[in-house]
Amino acid sequence: MTESAPVKRRGRGRRPFAEVHAEVLEAAGNVLMDEGLSGFTVEKVVIASGVSSATVYKYWPSRGALALDGYLHVAGDSLARRDTGNVEADLKYMLTAFVKTVTRKPFGPVFAQLVGTAQTDTELAAQFDRYFGPRRSNFFAILEAAKTRGQLRRDTDVGVLVDTVWGACLMRLLLPHLTSGLTPQFVGEVVDQALTGVLVEPAPTQIYD
Amino acid sequence: MTESAPVKRRGRGRRPFAEVHAEVLEAAGNVLMDEGLSGFTVEKVVIASGVSSATVYKYWPSRGALALDGYLHVAGDSLARRDTGNVEADLKYMLTAFVKTVTRKPFGPVFAQLVGTAQTDTELAAQFDRYFGPRRSNFFAILEAAKTRGQLRRDTDVGVLVDTVWGACLMRLLLPHLTSGLTPQFVGEVVDQALTGVLVEPAPTQIYD
Repeated sequence: MTESAPVKRRGRGRRPFAEVHAEVLEAAGNVLMDEGLSGFTVEKVVIASGVSSATVYKYWPSRGALALDGYLHVAGDSLARRDTGNVEADLKYMLTAFVKTVTRKPFGPVFAQLVGTAQTDTELAAQFDRYFGPRRSNFFAILEAAKTRGQLRRDTDVGVLVDTVWGACLMRLLLPHLTSGLTPQFVGEVVDQALTGVLVEPAPTQIYD
Repeated sequence: MTESAPVKRRGRGRRPFAEVHAEVLEAAGNVLMDEGLSGFTVEKVVIASGVSSATVYKYWPSRGALALDGYLHVAGDSLARRDTGNVEADLKYMLTAFVKTVTRKPFGPVFAQLVGTAQTDTELAAQFDRYFGPRRSNFFAILEAAKTRGQLRRDTDVGVLVDTVWGACLMRLLLPHLTSGLTPQFVGEVVDQALTGVLVEPAPTQIYD
């Protein structure tokens, strides 16, 4: 993403871990972007970073784990929390940021490939909560705040709500014939529908003490 | 799923296509159930079915496409349409049937593996609409009927609604740390929330002519 043509640095002696770590992630991200997950190998990252394969394997136990970290390094935090007090606008903003990232090449296909590969790569699967965990927490936070402000019903299960609006986007991303329908407009419709419901007769508003 | 120990039948001469087709699917389903997608090969299906590899490759252009058909053959139609007139109950029934199938071993892991592999296997991806297309149509049909009966608002985008409630289930299935939360109870909460919404102040009911 930044400077190109990383140089081999073998034989320069022991360097700080943070520096080595960053070089491996930069190299992993670049290999991913250039070749996709199918062309991604630990060996290519070793060559591009100049870090020994022993060191790379020590900290990244599997190809999938290294690829996930490389993705996170180059794709950035696409689900930063925003809480302006308008839960509808904030939900749309955060989900649209996710959708824009995962539908933009080269990140988008790589993200879908990572989710896909996690279905058969148990080491990658075990790492996946590092991606989704903090991002789900951001959603939880703004929805709980909206409950506290009295905008959402107190009995709202925010975990169900998050997985519903986010799951709609994941479904369109992962089912190839639906991906063209994964648009910011779709995000808006998903959020509107999830917030207001679809029944003609709204359930009676619950009365609280 | 049915009789075991398929017998090689090479050399018996030309047989009806339907018979050959069924034997290949039966063998493909059995190999999938026994070994999962990671152990699934076209060669194993050729051996188990006794059908020539030339014939198998003629009708199934990729390993993924053969695996998908084998899955459909053994897993059965888990999303049969039900329309009793109670859209809430019917949605829950159909989604729960899906969830039960995809969380039951050995089908469940294979289904997730198929969706995952479709992210890197373009031939499998191209076939995937054969699974999701008819099943989404079943959902569309009961939701459109509910609109016609006046149960759902006329401006409801049923495509958004289907992908929302189904996507919630797919998200929990495909994200390993969430899969334990993919339960019939979750399905109930997803459907309730999608139908009624979560806002304290319901949007004004739209007035129609």
